[in-house]
Amino acid sequence: MSDIPETRRSLVLRRRPSGEPRREDFSLVEEPMPAPGEGEVLTRTILLSIDPYMRGRLSDRPSYAPSIALGEVMTGESVGEVLASGDPAFSPGDLVVGARGWQTHTLSPAGVLTPVAREKDIPLGAWLGVLGMPGTTAYSGMKDIGQPKAGETVVVSAASGPVGAVAGQLARRAGARVVGIAGGPEKCVWVQEKFGFDDCVDHHAANLADSLALACPNGIDVYFENVGGVVQEIVFRMLNVHARVVMCGMVAQYNEATFPRGPNLGFVVGRRVRIEGLLVGDHPERFAEWRALAAPWVRDGSLRFRQTVMDGLDAAPEALRLVLRGGNFGKMLVRVGPDPA
Amino acid sequence: MSDIPETRRSLVLRRRPSGEPRREDFSLVEEPMPAPGEGEVLTRTILLSIDPYMRGRLSDRPSYAPSIALGEVMTGESVGEVLASGDPAFSPGDLVVGARGWQTHTLSPAGVLTPVAREKDIPLGAWLGVLGMPGTTAYSGMKDIGQPKAGETVVVSAASGPVGAVAGQLARRAGARVVGIAGGPEKCVWVQEKFGFDDCVDHHAANLADSLALACPNGIDVYFENVGGVVQEIVFRMLNVHARVVMCGMVAQYNEATFPRGPNLGFVVGRRVRIEGLLVGDHPERFAEWRALAAPWVRDGSLRFRQTVMDGLDAAPEALRLVLRGGNFGKMLVRVGPDPA
Repeated sequence: MSDIPETRRSLVLRRRPSGEPRREDFSLVEEPMPAPGEGEVLTRTILLSIDPYMRGRLSDRPSYAPSIALGEVMTGESVGEVLASGDPAFSPGDLVVGARGWQTHTLSPAGVLTPVAREKDIPLGAWLGVLGMPGTTAYSGMKDIGQPKAGETVVVSAASGPVGAVAGQLARRAGARVVGIAGGPEKCVWVQEKFGFDDCVDHHAANLADSLALACPNGIDVYFENVGGVVQEIVFRMLNVHARVVMCGMVAQYNEATFPRGPNLGFVVGRRVRIEGLLVGDHPERFAEWRALAAPWVRDGSLRFRQTVMDGLDAAPEALRLVLRGGNFGKMLVRVGPDPA
Repeated sequence: MSDIPETRRSLVLRRRPSGEPRREDFSLVEEPMPAPGEGEVLTRTILLSIDPYMRGRLSDRPSYAPSIALGEVMTGESVGEVLASGDPAFSPGDLVVGARGWQTHTLSPAGVLTPVAREKDIPLGAWLGVLGMPGTTAYSGMKDIGQPKAGETVVVSAASGPVGAVAGQLARRAGARVVGIAGGPEKCVWVQEKFGFDDCVDHHAANLADSLALACPNGIDVYFENVGGVVQEIVFRMLNVHARVVMCGMVAQYNEATFPRGPNLGFVVGRRVRIEGLLVGDHPERFAEWRALAAPWVRDGSLRFRQTVMDGLDAAPEALRLVLRGGNFGKMLVRVGPDPA
C-alpha cells in the first residue's frame, strides 16, 4: 500500500491529430488528488494498455470507438493498485484492472473494476493483453466467427500483436495449419518459434502474394483481419469456398483522412465467403470466460505472449503512434508506476 | 402425351460473349432424337428458366457457375413432359422439373428430375420461379443469413425479380419493414402494390441515396443484395450496427470484363456487419422444404409472383441479355413447347 500524493497528472486531448498522433496533441494537466465518494475507488496506475482502437477516439469521424471531446482525459484500460475505496468490495492494496484513463491516478465506479490476483506466473501486464481485451477479442473472434477446424488453413495478420498471437495459437489448438503475417524477419521468427505458428510471412517482403501462396498451398479457410490495405487484398484473393473472415481491425488505415476503395465483393457470392465484424464489447460474457479458460494456459506456459513496455505517462502518445505503425512487438504497455511491493 | 419427333434442336456455345450475350454467340444444332437408356428419361421442354447466373457459365473466368465449353449445349433448368422413360419412376405424360439444357428435348438421368403436379392454381412456370431455384434462393438467404426480425428494416434490390420478390415477401411475413429497389416506376408500383412491400425506390432516379434515406428512416438491418454497383455503395453506407448482408448476386457487373473496386470495409468492423455469400446449391435440403412451405401460399394467393415469357428456343440468348440488364419483369421464361393438353 502506498501513500497518496497531493496531486495527479492526466493527459487530455488538446487537438485532434492529423495523421499520426503526437505528444503535442495532448496536454499534461496536474490537479488535486480526488477522494473517492461512496461506491468509488481511487487507484494508482501501474500499467496502461495502448491499443489501435484508441485512434478512433481521437477522431471526430464515426468509428466503433466513440470520440473523446477536446479537453477530456484520454481513455485507456489500466492495471492499478487501490489507494482508497468508498466501496466495501475493494480495499487499499488490491490490484485491479478496468480503470480507464491516461492518468497517474484514476477515480472509478467500483462496478467497472475487476480484481486481479498477485501471481508469480502471471505478470500484471498479462491482464491487459493475453488475458485482457486483446486476448478476449481473439477468443471471441475465433469462437463466434472464425471457427477453425482441424486441417483448415488459418491466416492471421498482425500475428505478433496481442490479438493475432492469441488468435493463431487458438487456431493451432483447433488443429488448423496457421500462417501469420507480420512486419519484418524478427517478428516472423518469433511468431513461428515462440508462438508456434506453422509459418509466418513478412508483409514488407517484395512478393507477399507469392510468399503467402507458398505458405498456404491449400488456400485460406479463415482469415483473422487486423490490418486491411494490401494484405487484405492479397489474402482475399486466396480465400476458399466457405471461408470466414473475422474483421477485427484495419489498422493500416486508422491514421488516414480518407479511406481507399476496397475489394470488389463478387468473390463473396462466388465463394460463399462470410465476412463479419467483431467488437469484443458486444460479447461481455466472453471476458470472464476467457480469463477462466486461458489463465491456466498462461501459468503452464502453453499460451505464449510478448509485451513491449515504454516508460512514463508522457510516453503514451508515442506508444500509440508506434502501435499504429507496427512499431510495437507484442502487447504495448506504458509503465506509469512501480509494481506493488 | 405427345408423339416423338425425329430430331431435336439445341443451342450450343459458339464463342464466349464479349459484354452482353447475343444470339450470334450460339449455334442452333439439329440432331437425331436420342432414345433413353436404362435410368434415363427423354423429356420435351415446355418452359426454360433464364437466370443471371448463366452469364458466368458463358465466361471462362472463375465464377460460382462453372463454365460450359465451346460447342457444348447451354445448360438451364426447365419444366418438361416425359416422352419416353428408361426408369420405372417416370412414365410418358409426367411433368417434371430439373432437366437442364437449352434444347427442345432433353435426355436426363432420372435422378435429377422432380415430378411436378398439374394444378390449376400453380402455373407450370412457378416451378422454375417462385417455387423453384429463385424462390428457394430467397428462402435460404433469409433463413440462413438475413434472419429479419419484427420491426427491422429490410432492403431488397432487384425487388421485382423472382428472388427479390420472394425475399421481400418473406421479410414482410417476419414483421419487418421492407423496402424494395427496382428499375423504373412501373416495377416500383408493382413491388409495392402487388408484392406488398412497404416502399420501393427506383434506382434510375437521380437521388437514389436521398430516396432510400427517406424510405429507411431507421437505417437498414438486412440487405438482400442482387445487383452490386452503385446501389450496393449507397445501401452499405446506411447499414446499422449488426446488419446482415445476403450476398446473392451482383448482376450489374456480370457482363463486365473487369470488376470495379468495391467499398472500403472499415465499416464492417465499426458496425459489426455480417456479409455472407449464398449459393442455393449449397443447401440442397432447402428446395423440398421450400416447395412444401410455399406451395400452399401460392395456391391461396398470399405469395405473389410475376413472370415474363418469351417465345421459342431461339429467344433464349435475348432473354438472357434482357435479364442481365433488368429488361425482364419478374421471372424470365422461354416457351419452347406448348403446355400439356
